[in-house]
Amino acid sequence: MRDIGLLISYDGTAYCGFQAQPNLRTIQQELQDAIHVLTGEEVKVVGSGRTDSGVHAMGQVIQFQTTSAIPIERWKLALNARLPQDIVIRAAVEAPPGFDVIRSATRKTYRYTINNNRIPDIFHRRLQFHHPTPLNLTEMIAGLEGLLGEHDFSSFCSRKSTKSSHVRTLYEATIITEKDSYPDTEGRNGVFHIFITGNGFLYNMVRIIVGTLLQVGEGKRTAEDMMKILESRDRGAAGPTAIAQGLCLWQVDYDLIKFT
Amino acid sequence: MRDIGLLISYDGTAYCGFQAQPNLRTIQQELQDAIHVLTGEEVKVVGSGRTDSGVHAMGQVIQFQTTSAIPIERWKLALNARLPQDIVIRAAVEAPPGFDVIRSATRKTYRYTINNNRIPDIFHRRLQFHHPTPLNLTEMIAGLEGLLGEHDFSSFCSRKSTKSSHVRTLYEATIITEKDSYPDTEGRNGVFHIFITGNGFLYNMVRIIVGTLLQVGEGKRTAEDMMKILESRDRGAAGPTAIAQGLCLWQVDYDLIKFT
Repeated sequence: MRDIGLLISYDGTAYCGFQAQPNLRTIQQELQDAIHVLTGEEVKVVGSGRTDSGVHAMGQVIQFQTTSAIPIERWKLALNARLPQDIVIRAAVEAPPGFDVIRSATRKTYRYTINNNRIPDIFHRRLQFHHPTPLNLTEMIAGLEGLLGEHDFSSFCSRKSTKSSHVRTLYEATIITEKDSYPDTEGRNGVFHIFITGNGFLYNMVRIIVGTLLQVGEGKRTAEDMMKILESRDRGAAGPTAIAQGLCLWQVDYDLIKFT
Repeated sequence: MRDIGLLISYDGTAYCGFQAQPNLRTIQQELQDAIHVLTGEEVKVVGSGRTDSGVHAMGQVIQFQTTSAIPIERWKLALNARLPQDIVIRAAVEAPPGFDVIRSATRKTYRYTINNNRIPDIFHRRLQFHHPTPLNLTEMIAGLEGLLGEHDFSSFCSRKSTKSSHVRTLYEATIITEKDSYPDTEGRNGVFHIFITGNGFLYNMVRIIVGTLLQVGEGKRTAEDMMKILESRDRGAAGPTAIAQGLCLWQVDYDLIKFT
């Protein structure tokens, strides 16, 4: 039995999330179907984590077992020919013994994209949250930095979470403005991306952080409030969950496998 | 009666082109419907030119007459609130007497986007033609430059054209590679855009130029062949019509109006 790891991207717009569910279009099901057509096998695909309905992935990693003898360099093109246009395999590797796509991940990075221009960008609308009124980016960056390090993130976690511990560590959190974007005279900031890297993320964690951070940007809360919310360990203290379409699972890092 | 000019963008994927047709979704019809909801008037919207089914626009310009007293600065937001997500008004101006959105245009620029990477870009797939095998960009640029100036473009025009003259002037034609794209060791060129500016374009002209140019890039024809095809004034001498989804009406210039 071989153990294969795939680096994949998908546009989540048309899917009810990653995890297979009866009678719904999901990323997992599309991958399993494509592998079935290719190999004749009924495999179970496991992702580094689930993504919700409408959430995208640039660098999701999946794992599955197969008895197929298809050479590792052939999987990418063979599967891409059998997948819909909004899912693509970017690379394939033979996973070493002991590799577990969930537990072996050392870091994960999410990107949340906000279009802070007055008018929407119709060509990227599926990947952006359009927020046409001014935002204070400096205050948002300060608020974001307050979350760095190891904390109990219960305040920034859906009440539906079933995890026994809500302690996670954020390694990096930055806001990157697109090259051709610049603030207008009224405080709009063009298109910008919030990148957050940690050792793991709770259910809706990035979207609740972003939803709260937008309130900081709007002046409804201060950067210091982000730390107070964190300390309260109360979901009710944080802001709303930002819409799914702005979120993209950007990168998952492993020591055990590297995609080239 | 007021005469209004609008600068608009649209993602043409979901539309049967610009021109209104019975029982089909078109850009013109969506615009007329939105103006009707806003003003109660049945206006006729005229575009600087038609775009075909699946073709996009970054900077299409349209014109219509209205008796509405809505201030010029209000049209943009008022119409955007009533238009679908894949059409957006970017600016509105009061057109001066004698302005004609078709005849007053001094220059038009089209962009055609090619993804020459091995794998498709799922996030931009609606805006690109995916050509995964190597292309000789240097030869393509040389072929493109051979078309500059005033010529009879009958070879690069659909046989369905009803124009009495096929003489047009191309002012500029360039290939711009995206910043983070670079050729791979096997001759792929990342994502690049073919920009063509002229005083006017014939039916399918840009798409036939691109379809022929791709044959030059593939080594099936030489750069010099482009000029020979031009001289033949025979549609049969040129290559195929490149698919619609890579094409975008980029900009239309006027002396009589400026959008700021």
